[in-house]
Amino acid sequence: MKLTDEQKKEIKEQQSQQNLTKRVTATELEKILYDAIPILDHGFIRVVDYMGDDSSVVQSARVSYGKGTKKVSTDAGLIKYLMRHWHSTPFEMCEIKYHVKLPIFIARQWIRHRTANVNEYSARYSILDKEFYLPEPQHLAAQSQSNRQGRGDILDGDKAKKVLNLLKGDAEQTYNNYETMLNERYDGSTIDENTVGLARELARMNLTLNTYTQWYWKTDLLNLMNFLRLRADHHAQYEIRAYADAMLDTVKKWVPITYEAFMDYRVGGTEVSAKGKIIIQKLIKGENVSINDTSLSKREWNELMEAFDLKDKLI
Amino acid sequence: MKLTDEQKKEIKEQQSQQNLTKRVTATELEKILYDAIPILDHGFIRVVDYMGDDSSVVQSARVSYGKGTKKVSTDAGLIKYLMRHWHSTPFEMCEIKYHVKLPIFIARQWIRHRTANVNEYSARYSILDKEFYLPEPQHLAAQSQSNRQGRGDILDGDKAKKVLNLLKGDAEQTYNNYETMLNERYDGSTIDENTVGLARELARMNLTLNTYTQWYWKTDLLNLMNFLRLRADHHAQYEIRAYADAMLDTVKKWVPITYEAFMDYRVGGTEVSAKGKIIIQKLIKGENVSINDTSLSKREWNELMEAFDLKDKLI
Amino acid sequence: MKLTDEQKKEIKEQQSQQNLTKRVTATELEKILYDAIPILDHGFIRVVDYMGDDSSVVQSARVSYGKGTKKVSTDAGLIKYLMRHWHSTPFEMCEIKYHVKLPIFIARQWIRHRTANVNEYSARYSILDKEFYLPEPQHLAAQSQSNRQGRGDILDGDKAKKVLNLLKGDAEQTYNNYETMLNERYDGSTIDENTVGLARELARMNLTLNTYTQWYWKTDLLNLMNFLRLRADHHAQYEIRAYADAMLDTVKKWVPITYEAFMDYRVGGTEVSAKGKIIIQKLIKGENVSINDTSLSKREWNELMEAFDLKDKLI
Amino acid sequence: MKLTDEQKKEIKEQQSQQNLTKRVTATELEKILYDAIPILDHGFIRVVDYMGDDSSVVQSARVSYGKGTKKVSTDAGLIKYLMRHWHSTPFEMCEIKYHVKLPIFIARQWIRHRTANVNEYSARYSILDKEFYLPEPQHLAAQSQSNRQGRGDILDGDKAKKVLNLLKGDAEQTYNNYETMLNERYDGSTIDENTVGLARELARMNLTLNTYTQWYWKTDLLNLMNFLRLRADHHAQYEIRAYADAMLDTVKKWVPITYEAFMDYRVGGTEVSAKGKIIIQKLIKGENVSINDTSLSKREWNELMEAFDLKDKLI
Repeated sequence: MKLTDEQKKEIKEQQSQQNLTKRVTATELEKILYDAIPILDHGFIRVVDYMGDDSSVVQSARVSYGKGTKKVSTDAGLIKYLMRHWHSTPFEMCEIKYHVKLPIFIARQWIRHRTANVNEYSARYSILDKEFYLPEPQHLAAQSQSNRQGRGDILDGDKAKKVLNLLKGDAEQTYNNYETMLNERYDGSTIDENTVGLARELARMNLTLNTYTQWYWKTDLLNLMNFLRLRADHHAQYEIRAYADAMLDTVKKWVPITYEAFMDYRVGGTEVSAKGKIIIQKLIKGENVSINDTSLSKREWNELMEAFDLKDKLI
Repeated sequence: MKLTDEQKKEIKEQQSQQNLTKRVTATELEKILYDAIPILDHGFIRVVDYMGDDSSVVQSARVSYGKGTKKVSTDAGLIKYLMRHWHSTPFEMCEIKYHVKLPIFIARQWIRHRTANVNEYSARYSILDKEFYLPEPQHLAAQSQSNRQGRGDILDGDKAKKVLNLLKGDAEQTYNNYETMLNERYDGSTIDENTVGLARELARMNLTLNTYTQWYWKTDLLNLMNFLRLRADHHAQYEIRAYADAMLDTVKKWVPITYEAFMDYRVGGTEVSAKGKIIIQKLIKGENVSINDTSLSKREWNELMEAFDLKDKLI
Repeated sequence: MKLTDEQKKEIKEQQSQQNLTKRVTATELEKILYDAIPILDHGFIRVVDYMGDDSSVVQSARVSYGKGTKKVSTDAGLIKYLMRHWHSTPFEMCEIKYHVKLPIFIARQWIRHRTANVNEYSARYSILDKEFYLPEPQHLAAQSQSNRQGRGDILDGDKAKKVLNLLKGDAEQTYNNYETMLNERYDGSTIDENTVGLARELARMNLTLNTYTQWYWKTDLLNLMNFLRLRADHHAQYEIRAYADAMLDTVKKWVPITYEAFMDYRVGGTEVSAKGKIIIQKLIKGENVSINDTSLSKREWNELMEAFDLKDKLI
Repeated sequence: MKLTDEQKKEIKEQQSQQNLTKRVTATELEKILYDAIPILDHGFIRVVDYMGDDSSVVQSARVSYGKGTKKVSTDAGLIKYLMRHWHSTPFEMCEIKYHVKLPIFIARQWIRHRTANVNEYSARYSILDKEFYLPEPQHLAAQSQSNRQGRGDILDGDKAKKVLNLLKGDAEQTYNNYETMLNERYDGSTIDENTVGLARELARMNLTLNTYTQWYWKTDLLNLMNFLRLRADHHAQYEIRAYADAMLDTVKKWVPITYEAFMDYRVGGTEVSAKGKIIIQKLIKGENVSINDTSLSKREWNELMEAFDLKDKLI
């Protein structure tokens, strides 16, 4: 990640602010506020604003349940209870805003989470930075043969090199032609004073999907957890997971009690179907159960066994 | 409005907080943070948290338009431009949270604005306060004869007195019977130690719709303006308008530049249809236009003339 | 449930329609389209429109995954896979619209599900029907002593009678005074021609929360399942569960394959936390585990044991 | 637009359906149901499902306002009233589903409308078609000098040719390298049986933003109109306007009365600010007003004069 001098100056100014407020503050999060945390080769995330902390979740739950929540003696106990029983509204009372720099093909996955507010850099108005994502060799994996949306083995050195050369060459060439069509360089300078360039809203179509874009992305804590649950999962594409992992760290600094409950009940937890419950009950009773005793598919059976780390039952 | 000692203590504690933050702060809003602003006879609104200010709107717009917005020299100019052209996402980057106490029949109107986060006091868990809305005599109006959802003349003194007696008597009686069914008084004391009360989730159905409830209500600046545009309008029911007017004041303290643009383009503005535009053009040219030259209904014609204060053209 | 003659006529007309369409149709649902299914003493639900069926879920999934889904040979297999892995968007491709008549205190719970479209009968415009919910004696339960939002034992005959008398008396009295204030009877007739009534938007505040209202409520299949998962659950208040149960039947007629998957994975399923998984694994291995070996609270322990029907482990 | 044989067969099968339904049907829309309407060089839209018609809007409004709407004698009068006064919920009661094929850079604009349901073809699972958007020469415009997001003059023949060559060459080259990296051709055939290809989720990043994708997109009538109001506007980028214009035609066939009201009040209408109203009033009175008498910016002044076609007042 390479910040421009302008960006460095902006970050420094933002971090030098010292304002007095009557609002609750999250001490650990304040320490990294505005910091650019590097992701992939040119990307970053920065927490640029937030509202509320663990106490806001608790406060909202207590207004709902009134005197009824007095019996739950601790904030942690209440937050765990809310998480376990899928109470949603108290977690909506906290809000966070990120500044994110990311490749366009990842932005396209990300934007599918609709319950967020977004302001993206517009390539209709302005020229995009000359930066594109090139994976590290250890992330250049072959297509999985068993899972149509997954990755298989890492490509060997020669193949990886060839792939990287193609990606790099095409990104550079299409960007150069983007500049040519615009009659404008990435730094804003004009190429040929005697002619006009193609409209920016058209020229951008020549860029490849690994070009970096950036946006402000704001959401509440509930929807952030829904996002992270899917995107920090090992089924998620590595490139978006890299962002989700860094965001998980910011959640830990922001709302540490909610974070613990989230890791226990959502990220580390599993769902068991009605049919699955019967199988688990039999296993606990020491009964011998095989897939033939059930109506589960092979895939479903294996998912259940893996969830409980019963490797010897995999078929 | 009568705050309990517990509430007064909580507000005092909240207001005594002095936290350092790197976040932007809204100086005027900080001054009234947590204050209970009285509405109607027992209601209030309190701003209990917020995120961002006018500069956050500008910052988000500038990330979108990149170098393209440098030409707009002032923040006020940019915010006015965004408002005029219905740009929505920059205004979503600010968030505010209110604590509101309000009669249930108003809560039922309010909740129809779906893009907000809500935690309401639950009468399944806890007993509701013994407080119900009784209008001031000057707000006791007859049914409008011309507008099915509007109010007509103020009721005369005797009629008003009779109505207030009915409202008061019924609210008190149904609340007393609510306590009787619960076998519990509003202060939590048990009525008869030797018996059990009806489940709270059932007993509440005996209360009248002017009983007060309370909630935390959180929304972004865009959706708050959508709410206020409808609910601070003179067509809105007086009781919800009383809340909206007080909220408009908090918006002025929070984001003064956005507030000015909102009052100019939305609250004080008007829409003109394609057909209406042709009529206005003719009027500007000094042509004589009557409703018979148009396909407008009488109602639509009058709405257009009223929008431009052309009283002599009303029919 | 007592339908007016006007309603009966409307239903009959709607049901007599025989339109040709190229759209997919759900044969079993068509049979009950427009039918008023009675709920509680005066309520009902009616399916009044729908879009799509199980094949629409499959079609949408196949457009997403392209040739990649060809390997899943059956529609049922694909729908089960989507449900198991929390795929959401294919289930959003079906839509259903209900006409519902329900008590106001239940409408207030229901409306908290925000991702739906609603048109409610407006008591600002029109007089509400003279109908209020009175529970059957077997649903008049005492407040639970262990669960603040639950019900305990059924009230004995005398107590139940007393409660019903209070509910009935108060509802009738407040409705009569509502008519008096309006100077209008429930059937639209004027009481005293020589005077004017209070505005409808004010008079309604005198009604009790068990008064019936009605609305059109439209949502997509995904959000309908989210609603039903919470409201058909045994923790839900009986009165809303009565509606949810009837709606579950309509889902079965509409999208039978999705219904089966939903019952297996959501309604009949359970979540297990990271800590819970370790306990279950130990139990399967035949190890002896007690709550003291864990960091679970008593409540959480019991919830886990109940989920797998391990009654002898309850503490 | 070139449909595959498989697609043609699917469309033919869908169109041959003749189902009986009790639901309302939109006769004109049924005639074009499933038809692929060509947009740009390879794109299309197809209406693939719908729910409701103009009568559904009316029906929902009448349930809201009860007996109160009886006075509005015609459906058209009621729909016009609802549109004029920004009533939103009755228009949410109709739903439509499109199948759309469109270039990725347009998909990125489109997806910003969040209140819709989307299933997009996934390039993680499957290989994308070898189709990319190349503008017609008359749409190859220079960057506007006055409007940073607009287009200026059409490029002259030579320049246009050069641009098209660059766009075509880069799209073909990056697609070929996409196939090379995948070790798979667009038709699914393997290139080299002795080696493995890069994971699809990675290889796709080499494609340019004018590559075509496709999705199912479903929304309600209210949100569709919000989309069309912005995207059929002359400020919208030509390429998305081409889709919006075709969709406007489908709205006309589906809900002709709502369409008329929408064109009159939204598409053809204008907003006037509080300050603008004062200026228009003065103009109607025959007063001479110049920008110096107001606090309007030059841009705002001109927008107002243009809205009412007062060309001689432009400055």
